[in-house]
Amino acid sequence: MTSTPTAPGARSLLCVVLAAGKGTRMRSDLPKVLHPLAGRPMLGHVLAAVRAAGADAVAVVIEPGRADVAAAVEVAAPGAQVFPQAERLGTAHAVLAARPALEAGCDDVVIAFGDTPLIRPETLARLRAPLAEGAGVAVLAFEAADPTGYGRVLTDGDRVVAICEEKDAGPEERRVSLSNAGLMALSGRLALDLLGRIGNANAAGEYYLPDAVALAVADGERVAVVPVEEAEAQGVNDRVQLAAAEAVIQARLRREAMLAGATLIAPETVFLSHDTRLGRDVVVEPHVVFGPGVVVGDGCTIHAFSHLEKTVLEPGVQIGPYARLRPGAHLARGARIGNFVEVKNAAIGAGAKVNHLSYVGDAEVGAGANLGAGTITCNYDGVNKHRTVIGAGAFVGSNSALVAPVTIGARAYVGSGSVVTDDVPAEALALGRGRQVVKPGWAKGKGKA
Amino acid sequence: MTSTPTAPGARSLLCVVLAAGKGTRMRSDLPKVLHPLAGRPMLGHVLAAVRAAGADAVAVVIEPGRADVAAAVEVAAPGAQVFPQAERLGTAHAVLAARPALEAGCDDVVIAFGDTPLIRPETLARLRAPLAEGAGVAVLAFEAADPTGYGRVLTDGDRVVAICEEKDAGPEERRVSLSNAGLMALSGRLALDLLGRIGNANAAGEYYLPDAVALAVADGERVAVVPVEEAEAQGVNDRVQLAAAEAVIQARLRREAMLAGATLIAPETVFLSHDTRLGRDVVVEPHVVFGPGVVVGDGCTIHAFSHLEKTVLEPGVQIGPYARLRPGAHLARGARIGNFVEVKNAAIGAGAKVNHLSYVGDAEVGAGANLGAGTITCNYDGVNKHRTVIGAGAFVGSNSALVAPVTIGARAYVGSGSVVTDDVPAEALALGRGRQVVKPGWAKGKGKA
Amino acid sequence: MTSTPTAPGARSLLCVVLAAGKGTRMRSDLPKVLHPLAGRPMLGHVLAAVRAAGADAVAVVIEPGRADVAAAVEVAAPGAQVFPQAERLGTAHAVLAARPALEAGCDDVVIAFGDTPLIRPETLARLRAPLAEGAGVAVLAFEAADPTGYGRVLTDGDRVVAICEEKDAGPEERRVSLSNAGLMALSGRLALDLLGRIGNANAAGEYYLPDAVALAVADGERVAVVPVEEAEAQGVNDRVQLAAAEAVIQARLRREAMLAGATLIAPETVFLSHDTRLGRDVVVEPHVVFGPGVVVGDGCTIHAFSHLEKTVLEPGVQIGPYARLRPGAHLARGARIGNFVEVKNAAIGAGAKVNHLSYVGDAEVGAGANLGAGTITCNYDGVNKHRTVIGAGAFVGSNSALVAPVTIGARAYVGSGSVVTDDVPAEALALGRGRQVVKPGWAKGKGKA
Repeated sequence: MTSTPTAPGARSLLCVVLAAGKGTRMRSDLPKVLHPLAGRPMLGHVLAAVRAAGADAVAVVIEPGRADVAAAVEVAAPGAQVFPQAERLGTAHAVLAARPALEAGCDDVVIAFGDTPLIRPETLARLRAPLAEGAGVAVLAFEAADPTGYGRVLTDGDRVVAICEEKDAGPEERRVSLSNAGLMALSGRLALDLLGRIGNANAAGEYYLPDAVALAVADGERVAVVPVEEAEAQGVNDRVQLAAAEAVIQARLRREAMLAGATLIAPETVFLSHDTRLGRDVVVEPHVVFGPGVVVGDGCTIHAFSHLEKTVLEPGVQIGPYARLRPGAHLARGARIGNFVEVKNAAIGAGAKVNHLSYVGDAEVGAGANLGAGTITCNYDGVNKHRTVIGAGAFVGSNSALVAPVTIGARAYVGSGSVVTDDVPAEALALGRGRQVVKPGWAKGKGKA
Repeated sequence: MTSTPTAPGARSLLCVVLAAGKGTRMRSDLPKVLHPLAGRPMLGHVLAAVRAAGADAVAVVIEPGRADVAAAVEVAAPGAQVFPQAERLGTAHAVLAARPALEAGCDDVVIAFGDTPLIRPETLARLRAPLAEGAGVAVLAFEAADPTGYGRVLTDGDRVVAICEEKDAGPEERRVSLSNAGLMALSGRLALDLLGRIGNANAAGEYYLPDAVALAVADGERVAVVPVEEAEAQGVNDRVQLAAAEAVIQARLRREAMLAGATLIAPETVFLSHDTRLGRDVVVEPHVVFGPGVVVGDGCTIHAFSHLEKTVLEPGVQIGPYARLRPGAHLARGARIGNFVEVKNAAIGAGAKVNHLSYVGDAEVGAGANLGAGTITCNYDGVNKHRTVIGAGAFVGSNSALVAPVTIGARAYVGSGSVVTDDVPAEALALGRGRQVVKPGWAKGKGKA
Repeated sequence: MTSTPTAPGARSLLCVVLAAGKGTRMRSDLPKVLHPLAGRPMLGHVLAAVRAAGADAVAVVIEPGRADVAAAVEVAAPGAQVFPQAERLGTAHAVLAARPALEAGCDDVVIAFGDTPLIRPETLARLRAPLAEGAGVAVLAFEAADPTGYGRVLTDGDRVVAICEEKDAGPEERRVSLSNAGLMALSGRLALDLLGRIGNANAAGEYYLPDAVALAVADGERVAVVPVEEAEAQGVNDRVQLAAAEAVIQARLRREAMLAGATLIAPETVFLSHDTRLGRDVVVEPHVVFGPGVVVGDGCTIHAFSHLEKTVLEPGVQIGPYARLRPGAHLARGARIGNFVEVKNAAIGAGAKVNHLSYVGDAEVGAGANLGAGTITCNYDGVNKHRTVIGAGAFVGSNSALVAPVTIGARAYVGSGSVVTDDVPAEALALGRGRQVVKPGWAKGKGKA
């Protein structure tokens, strides 16, 4: 039953992705296919797989009027055609919503689903491979641990004889565990003809894509079956299944990162994005969350409880525990961000240190600078955001507030507890704090101070 | 062996919960049944199930002198009767400690255990159902993966013939995997009689509840068996089993939350309380802990590493990462609490923002107000706590200390780094900080500032 | 096939640990055996097991010139001999790199591997036990779920007949699932002779330790097989396997801690070090990381998201959530460290409180003192670190900066928002902040303050 992947050669490929489902069981205002997995919409995963499988053209069938879905398609597969499905009359009807794409012609058509996000490019390649060997149709199928509810794939040797829906299945067919994953490859020479002949003479009055199999068999076409693991074929219909899909994707991402040379001490507690890049000899402690857009250079250490988004760490950086790096953080070689520190839209110079309880936003911190505990860049005045520039080798004493726009010169020194409102020249000392007064014996008649 | 649940109709139900166990293997000063699961004592889970199963009367047998256990009973099942078990002479003896409750009379008696906290109300209903159909006794039983150590339930068709303890079991009986879960339903007409006839002629000299089965069978009463999953029947005897029970309860709570329309990106890292309420389209990132008493409105986002207790989030609120909401936090629509921010006993107005490194305690923050990074309400003077009131649209500059009691008027503006000790009128500017001085070239002869 | 552990009696034991492997698949600059598990190098775990198994002498074979590995050996097994393996010519050749240790003579020789870190002392004891009963060699073996790739252990009753490598195995031998774990015990009277006779007439031209079995069998020596669980015998060759080994060790540590009387609400989210000590009735909430050197006294509570290293908590201490205790933190009875608080090299007195957003470093805090939110010890002046001393019962108002070296006397009171640069006498009040000024109506012509 194994079908060996075949090099697609010069055969052209159209992928039709069905993404118009309502997703009622998600109980959400967000269209099902836009629910994210590993920081990217479910549909984005399918489109990425489709592109990696070498699709020459991509057609996505969506619910009419969903500009958000159309926009997500354009992000994930620029140039893909989007077709609204005006009425919801079944999967075959949905594929025909993309009729113009089918009419444009191609050697192979692969039909995938926006809510089957775990499918891998290799599997799509395997699915179309039988077409190059003369098959008219290929169906993706898995051995179900419990096939109840699935369409059973009835085979004779390596040929599919029929797909039998659960409700039409007799006792013998119910014992078949080979189940229809839904994804299908159709020869371009047959696709429009087969799809056009699918009828709706069933209880729901819908046009079902699996009916293409019976038509092809009746035409004497070979229908191949291509096996897949059950886990990879799983669809997402509710948020329990969404979480299960997230777990599968996370496991894949973690495994890749580890094999490439990053240590994840407790991989099950580290959450990666689809695009996270971890260098060699990176160490990630337990309980770390990577949002999209993070690049971590060789030899970095990410301590526990850190959270990163759209951030670049050059080699040898150490962050955390409890470091929160927000979009636009760029940490140069050997920089150090410590606990309870937030960095946003800021460049931290080589070897610079921000070790405790600080907020550094809209800022530039020079190489080797040291910001003491509790340093805060006051970047927002209630109306606009302003920049703070701290020179190389500067020292900012603990609990200082730097009121932007402001510049601290190279090797300047800001005394602890200062509020800095004016620029400080290079190598100067700045103080901005009240003078200490002491009232001896005051605590005996204790009040509020 | 399946017994169909029957509507209990007008039959009255007494539940006796045995909660006097020492729990030596817990190695704890806390009574075993008070160890919490999902933020509520183990015993509270059993009592909640008993109440949800429709108990008309509840009797709890406890260790003498345990006011803490009695208090927990009153919280979980107000009006329940508490009976001390003076001597520890076995489970049947323990049930008879509640003799006054039994003598008060009822149609059905269900006996549950304070250290079997996973039992569900549906299961208790199924357990008593055979009594309405004429059975004298019903025992709850599970197919054990490894029955070693359990009492085996010997059946003839759907009737129980005997319960055979491990030590009395011959080779054939040891092969039986149907095991006694301990929970039992007794017809009210038989309960006192059967319990009173149980003897203690055994090695330990104890009165064993399962012996009621042999007596009932000998009387010609039908003894039914009611199946249950092994996981649900698990008792808690040490802290490894406590953690296993917590895991089962968490899995149930997470599943319910997801099916109801909340996304838990990584459910295995989110810890809910028994009473956590999550609205539709709530998104919970990885690594979040909910203490008791949290209500989260529709469309809220809870970023990673957040911790909430006794807190209300109105719809559209965003918190975290690293938000810590303590008892009495109330966040109105669209409010935003950011990283390393603690809120306690404070109302945050609609659309207000507290985004970084702040402590807001005993306070009222008006709609649309913005508290800068490092804002701290100084609510405690060493003796008393005082309130801070911040008006709508006010702006508090970064690293400011608001020394309560103090009021910042609507649309007032507090300069960064200020210590505010006196009220600020609406629309006024307040500054309270030292003047900046600069000493040029100071760093060349560097000292301490 | 079970071999009962035997008291080793007066028999002397030499353990040879092979730790010279390159670990190419780790893709790391760090030698494989130095990759840490539960806060200690992999090799340290093996050496700890070897020592606990009662080794009289330990010889470790390492890659030449690896001072870092040699240093790790000295830490884990002081006095162990280290031998470089100049050429990499197979496991038997590696053992002979320790020839001087073998020549020194002993009753039993046990050979272990630096990259098989899960091996337990009891298992090493069981492995050598057959030698005391006359066996010449004992091999450790496990029933492999999938034996592909392992050497098969061929037995006749409880005697090993041969070890058959995968490549030499015929169809029948491939069906054997009993697999060679690699660890071996050799009688001291035979070890040098057997090892010296192992040849390299194989494709790789290497000297293989398992060949000792065939030689011993040919000599008429009894070769025993000692069973072990597959999980315990797992080697670490890449970072996926490293993470799997970490998971096994964590599960052991968590289980021990729970059985000893600590509650881990969600043990799968708590990461312990090999030396973490948790007292009775300690409660650890979800998501906590223990670095090395932590001792937690009875009745302490560690709230979620806490991170501890080289820290002592006396009984009744409460920390977190989000407490970060760094090396040298010592918290006396009943002290309380709250959220977003970092403590480093500091003694916190009995009942003292540091509840919010603070940094306490290089300090001494007296009993019952209270440090308000945002308190920061400014311990570093850019050149040196200085100490802060806070007397018993002192009160430090919120958002204060204590510029070290500085002493706050007993029961002294520091006003909120102060910068304290000079010592404060006992019972005195200190203020160090700007005076508040207010500009009415300023916000109507809003600018920056």
